[in-house]
Amino acid sequence: MDNTRLKAYAELIVKKGLNPDPGQEVIILAALDQPEFVRLVAEECYRAGAAKVTVDWQDMPLNKLAQLYQTEEKLGSIEDWEIEKLKWRVEKLPAFLWLDSDDPDGMDGIDQGKRARAQMARFPKIKPYRDAMENRFQWCIAGVPGKEWACKVFPGISAEEAVEKLWEAILTTARAEGDPIANWEEHNRVIHERCSALNDYKFIALEYQSSNGTDFRVGLMEQGIFAGGAEKDLSGRIFNPNIPSEEIFTSPKRGEAEGVLVSTKPLSWQGSLIENFSIRFEKGKAVEVKAEKGQEALERMIAMDEGAAYLGECALIGWDSPINRTGILFYSTLYDENASCHVALGRGFENCVADYDKYSQEQLRAMGVNDSMIHVDFMIGCRDLNITGITADGRKIPVFRFGEWCF
Amino acid sequence: MDNTRLKAYAELIVKKGLNPDPGQEVIILAALDQPEFVRLVAEECYRAGAAKVTVDWQDMPLNKLAQLYQTEEKLGSIEDWEIEKLKWRVEKLPAFLWLDSDDPDGMDGIDQGKRARAQMARFPKIKPYRDAMENRFQWCIAGVPGKEWACKVFPGISAEEAVEKLWEAILTTARAEGDPIANWEEHNRVIHERCSALNDYKFIALEYQSSNGTDFRVGLMEQGIFAGGAEKDLSGRIFNPNIPSEEIFTSPKRGEAEGVLVSTKPLSWQGSLIENFSIRFEKGKAVEVKAEKGQEALERMIAMDEGAAYLGECALIGWDSPINRTGILFYSTLYDENASCHVALGRGFENCVADYDKYSQEQLRAMGVNDSMIHVDFMIGCRDLNITGITADGRKIPVFRFGEWCF
Repeated sequence: MDNTRLKAYAELIVKKGLNPDPGQEVIILAALDQPEFVRLVAEECYRAGAAKVTVDWQDMPLNKLAQLYQTEEKLGSIEDWEIEKLKWRVEKLPAFLWLDSDDPDGMDGIDQGKRARAQMARFPKIKPYRDAMENRFQWCIAGVPGKEWACKVFPGISAEEAVEKLWEAILTTARAEGDPIANWEEHNRVIHERCSALNDYKFIALEYQSSNGTDFRVGLMEQGIFAGGAEKDLSGRIFNPNIPSEEIFTSPKRGEAEGVLVSTKPLSWQGSLIENFSIRFEKGKAVEVKAEKGQEALERMIAMDEGAAYLGECALIGWDSPINRTGILFYSTLYDENASCHVALGRGFENCVADYDKYSQEQLRAMGVNDSMIHVDFMIGCRDLNITGITADGRKIPVFRFGEWCF
Repeated sequence: MDNTRLKAYAELIVKKGLNPDPGQEVIILAALDQPEFVRLVAEECYRAGAAKVTVDWQDMPLNKLAQLYQTEEKLGSIEDWEIEKLKWRVEKLPAFLWLDSDDPDGMDGIDQGKRARAQMARFPKIKPYRDAMENRFQWCIAGVPGKEWACKVFPGISAEEAVEKLWEAILTTARAEGDPIANWEEHNRVIHERCSALNDYKFIALEYQSSNGTDFRVGLMEQGIFAGGAEKDLSGRIFNPNIPSEEIFTSPKRGEAEGVLVSTKPLSWQGSLIENFSIRFEKGKAVEVKAEKGQEALERMIAMDEGAAYLGECALIGWDSPINRTGILFYSTLYDENASCHVALGRGFENCVADYDKYSQEQLRAMGVNDSMIHVDFMIGCRDLNITGITADGRKIPVFRFGEWCF
């Protein structure tokens, strides 16, 4: 890929995605596939004034070996120094960038039960620090082509060609052409205007219907708001948590969800694919799941903890989204979730409550923001999806008709 | 490179180099160049019973960015969690493997003074933990071709060909052909026999002469021993700290070195090349250095701390060593030090004192084992090098004549 285009993408990620403060530290999580690009991004961070940039290189094949050979006890344990590192993050609040190039099938063949149990054992030790960092630092997820990922998205051609085609798709969908910074300023303006329009209705619920079997109603919090595009952390730093991002989303009210959602794209969860599935909800909780592929993984997912069977996100994306228009199935949540309306099981978003910083975490939970160790998006958008907003006085406002925004 | 040969090399590194205990953890330091090989090695460690294998991926271009952009204060600092990690290492004593593929010029152009001052500021915070681990765990350094390194060793051909040729040289010099395990058992037997012969003489000094200007005498400790090949850590675990290794070495007596040593190969120190240099010693201390290239780096090196100007190692390697026979200048200490007689400035080896575990570190220092934050080998071997051992009763025993072992 042409270096000028990569530099422009790196600059977009750092300036609009992460926006590090001068003197702030940056942590970058990256796989080994594109070291030159990771170095470009690191240098952009330094140019933006970062005091120190640390790259935590991740390698899925090594993670798979760990799952295969380590004991469940070892996988579920955490060393004192790792806790100290979390404390350091809570104190220093480095900006956090994930350059995602995960192989969607990279963890196939491991013992998913062992992995889940180890995660469940480890999570409570991490959670206090994760909670203490919530909304207090800038973070961003952006895509970078990995070889295995590219070959999955573009099968039947050489790995080199597949990587090049995936770069092209990543740069296009990230609006990284021309003047990427200006593109994102305009993009954020459009998203924020639509959020305002939605928030003015003060919907108490959304209803979803489509011909594939989706027939579903979800309650919304009285204080809930729709958000999207650029966000602010609690100290007012503006960042774009996802590049690309097309969604407008809210955190629904825990306990109010009835009916069936039918998936419209495969879901890659922890390196395993779940395909052609549906989930039935009662009183907010997933009570029945059916998957043509990955049934066991799906069942395990909603049993990860108490909140894993409840919803944490409802996201709205028009069928004409630039990502959907590529016609590419990315096998990656970052992209596929921005191609289509979706919901997420698990942890909700505290910042989808108006003035959320005035409430304690307990108060936010009581309002209906779900909590869980997982947050897994799955796609329900399709050509004939209708979504209707219900107002407090019972009016039914069309939000989506035939997969597209009504306003 | 053929996968069967790589697997045999990985097995050699793990079984003979590192030899992890069942249940022990392993840390691998590796660059990003050969991830498939690093994964092979990690899996070998697990097969040998390692409880957990952690790869600390290192990237010299990122380290260079850090040197260019971070403040000296930041570079010299260490976080509490890093100290906790050192404490964890002292407690758990994981085996440590460095898969070296460093670019010999990779740090060229940085401010060496800033780097050295930062290291000097950081080192005292790390030293207590390093001292506490000394001789208590297995460690190994083995080579893996990096692209930049290969292109330096084999200029004028494609990077791919250069890497392949460097793999070939690495496997040959590591005796990783045929049955590598059996090769190393025989190799260790030969080395240990030669060590016994040397130790029986109880030399009090070595004298070096060659036509290039080397004219030098170094004192040896009364309790000093020559060692080489497989070593034992304090709990009796046998490991080979270097693959390849051709040297027989001792830790000379601090304070007794007179005359001039002339280098016979370039030295890559911290990513900078120092070429055609000589060092003059008085009362054990380097008092004058002259380098055609890298004068400043060399001066800085011997000023890193008080012990950096004293010797920590005298190593003997015959001119017919398999590494020298390749005719390749590797620009890598691991290889070049095993091609030729060398000495090292800086830290000496406690385990070059007979029954060293019966003495305190203070006692070992008093006997003459040098201490420093550095340990830098440089080559003095050549075709006409003569080395003569001096016994307590004044006999002069030829050890090397015309670059070769006399026994």
